[in-house]
Amino acid sequence: MHIGILGGGQLGRMLALAGYPLGARFRCLDPAPNGPMSHTAEQIVGNYDDADALRRFAEGLDVVTYEFENVPVETARRLARHVPVYPPPEALEAAQDRLVEKQFFQGLGIPTPPFMPVGSRADLEAAVAEIGLPAVLKTRRMGYDGKGQAVLRAEADVEAAWQALGGAPLILEGFVPFVREVSVLAVRGRDGATAFYPLVENHHRTGILRLSLAPAPNLLPELQAHAEDYATRVLEALNYVGVLAIEFFEVGDGRRTTNDEQSSSSDSSSFATHHSPRLLANEMAPRVHNSGHWTIEGAETSQFANHVRAVAGLPLGSTALLGYAAMVNLIGTVPDAAGVLRVPGAHLHLYGKAPRPGRKLGHVTLRADDQHILMERVAAVEALLNEH
Amino acid sequence: MHIGILGGGQLGRMLALAGYPLGARFRCLDPAPNGPMSHTAEQIVGNYDDADALRRFAEGLDVVTYEFENVPVETARRLARHVPVYPPPEALEAAQDRLVEKQFFQGLGIPTPPFMPVGSRADLEAAVAEIGLPAVLKTRRMGYDGKGQAVLRAEADVEAAWQALGGAPLILEGFVPFVREVSVLAVRGRDGATAFYPLVENHHRTGILRLSLAPAPNLLPELQAHAEDYATRVLEALNYVGVLAIEFFEVGDGRRTTNDEQSSSSDSSSFATHHSPRLLANEMAPRVHNSGHWTIEGAETSQFANHVRAVAGLPLGSTALLGYAAMVNLIGTVPDAAGVLRVPGAHLHLYGKAPRPGRKLGHVTLRADDQHILMERVAAVEALLNEH
Repeated sequence: MHIGILGGGQLGRMLALAGYPLGARFRCLDPAPNGPMSHTAEQIVGNYDDADALRRFAEGLDVVTYEFENVPVETARRLARHVPVYPPPEALEAAQDRLVEKQFFQGLGIPTPPFMPVGSRADLEAAVAEIGLPAVLKTRRMGYDGKGQAVLRAEADVEAAWQALGGAPLILEGFVPFVREVSVLAVRGRDGATAFYPLVENHHRTGILRLSLAPAPNLLPELQAHAEDYATRVLEALNYVGVLAIEFFEVGDGRRTTNDEQSSSSDSSSFATHHSPRLLANEMAPRVHNSGHWTIEGAETSQFANHVRAVAGLPLGSTALLGYAAMVNLIGTVPDAAGVLRVPGAHLHLYGKAPRPGRKLGHVTLRADDQHILMERVAAVEALLNEH
Repeated sequence: MHIGILGGGQLGRMLALAGYPLGARFRCLDPAPNGPMSHTAEQIVGNYDDADALRRFAEGLDVVTYEFENVPVETARRLARHVPVYPPPEALEAAQDRLVEKQFFQGLGIPTPPFMPVGSRADLEAAVAEIGLPAVLKTRRMGYDGKGQAVLRAEADVEAAWQALGGAPLILEGFVPFVREVSVLAVRGRDGATAFYPLVENHHRTGILRLSLAPAPNLLPELQAHAEDYATRVLEALNYVGVLAIEFFEVGDGRRTTNDEQSSSSDSSSFATHHSPRLLANEMAPRVHNSGHWTIEGAETSQFANHVRAVAGLPLGSTALLGYAAMVNLIGTVPDAAGVLRVPGAHLHLYGKAPRPGRKLGHVTLRADDQHILMERVAAVEALLNEH
């Protein structure tokens, strides 16, 4: 089984490390040489729209997947005429544009924060009037790790946000007073079988994921059931194959949302029902995801192994947890490796990237049989970090 | 950290897969192109005594290790003049010759089966007379997986064994009526810290390891203590760095052994004391070992990760078990991957080698929280095998 990966970053690197034991071979296509995947697989250096590079990349491959969701959809479609491409290019298309993505969720009955498209300054005024403040103005495309976003807290912020982002197609999203951010990792095989990891609690700083806890502490079974239901709708709608991540806001109050017909038709009675926690879909990633890195040591089968199994047409593996796990991202600088490895239960993952402020250089997985001990270990690793 | 590995087989492949997350890079030297490690690391194709190949191999490396114990000692010594070589070349020297190895054990007070060197037909007669039958005649060098061995059950077998093996330096070993074969995996860091995995029970067929169970069922703490004591003597004597495997026979009767002064000086009283289980060292391997492959999923830190940590000067990782684990070798043919992966708790490891009778092509690790369930899973995998 020769697997091609569009993108040659750390996600591709970890897919390859998980896939070699299954007997797979890997080739990646990435414009940048010497990336994280270059040491662990063959690399074709070329742009995603370079016909010659695509031809060399595709030659002899059994299946193509991607580790980067901003691969041009046209590239995926072109390859799909010659070799199976999983997840399907439609998943890329749905995930690359925040407006299309939220409309897609809406069409599947998956609740989201309120949103409106913004194409002009007048649109922005109208959207602020409709959604209210605070709200978040975002570019519809190419945003990641908090880039291409501006928070509007007061009317005075509107002009600055428009100056910063206006010109690109935008979306205004209601700022949800969430209890916490959680994500679900789901996987669907070529045969339609599905599996789900437990919801993970995610902590961001300056828009970048810093810490994931698995399972999300105090996870209610009904919340997990909601997440699996929503993920299943997306998987089925796209005839998806591979790992899919959906990030949610967990909310516990009666705030109105776009898919919330009941609460807009009545008032106090529905308000009360919404004190139970609910999930609002924020965004999805049609690939393995940073909030699933803990699965390498923390689950019976990692998200990387399950993605390879799925796209290769093999049976999915168990998503059962092995105790409690946490993932601490290493951003900007790499702490002393020996110091990290002295923390009990710590597993270091470096991506082979040069340090740069704000750059994801690696992560540490921690595992323990007890959540309190786990959090002590998280604190021990965080004490070693000097992040930028 | 750029690590060079002498040998490019499956052990090197698994060392690389475990070492990339630690930020290491790998280069191997092996005479055969397209081996198991060639897809996952840079390879220098060349003989171990090719000065030019050795020069290209060593260039820029921080440390050299090996995954194959029949690397010429002179190669390791030559490299050690330019770059640290771990384990030390003395370990290779001690392990490559069965006579030197047994004398080395003996010198450290580690019990072994009775043995005598055999250089001539007359030596063989004398050794048979001294040790008795049954006994095993072995070549002193280059034996592995049961090759270069002949079992002598009766006087009539002596001539055939001599015809088959005579000419090479030999050793005759007393055939020990062992309860079972077990092995210990030990690791020692550059700083002298040591760690030990629990004793593993090994099952061979036609001289090839087929199944390992971890921990060895009904493992007595005193047996584990003996194994750790013996391994420590070897590690200290060699100022060893890296993973070391020692294979033992577990015996529970009063049979005389070379280091067994008491039992030869008296009779019935010492006979009784020897009904408690004891370990007789059979051989050692100065490298990661087939009987430790279960550690990838079955231990907090795998033997491969711990070997890389050791030679790289990083702290050793925990050797704690995660439940019960078993390793089933895939010999000669590879079973249907989907069938294997449908067995709960099964993890498939293929080495990228062409099928050939008697060849180790991969292994399956099984893990369970209960030993009975584990054995059901082992049986389910074994039912899929069609070994040659």
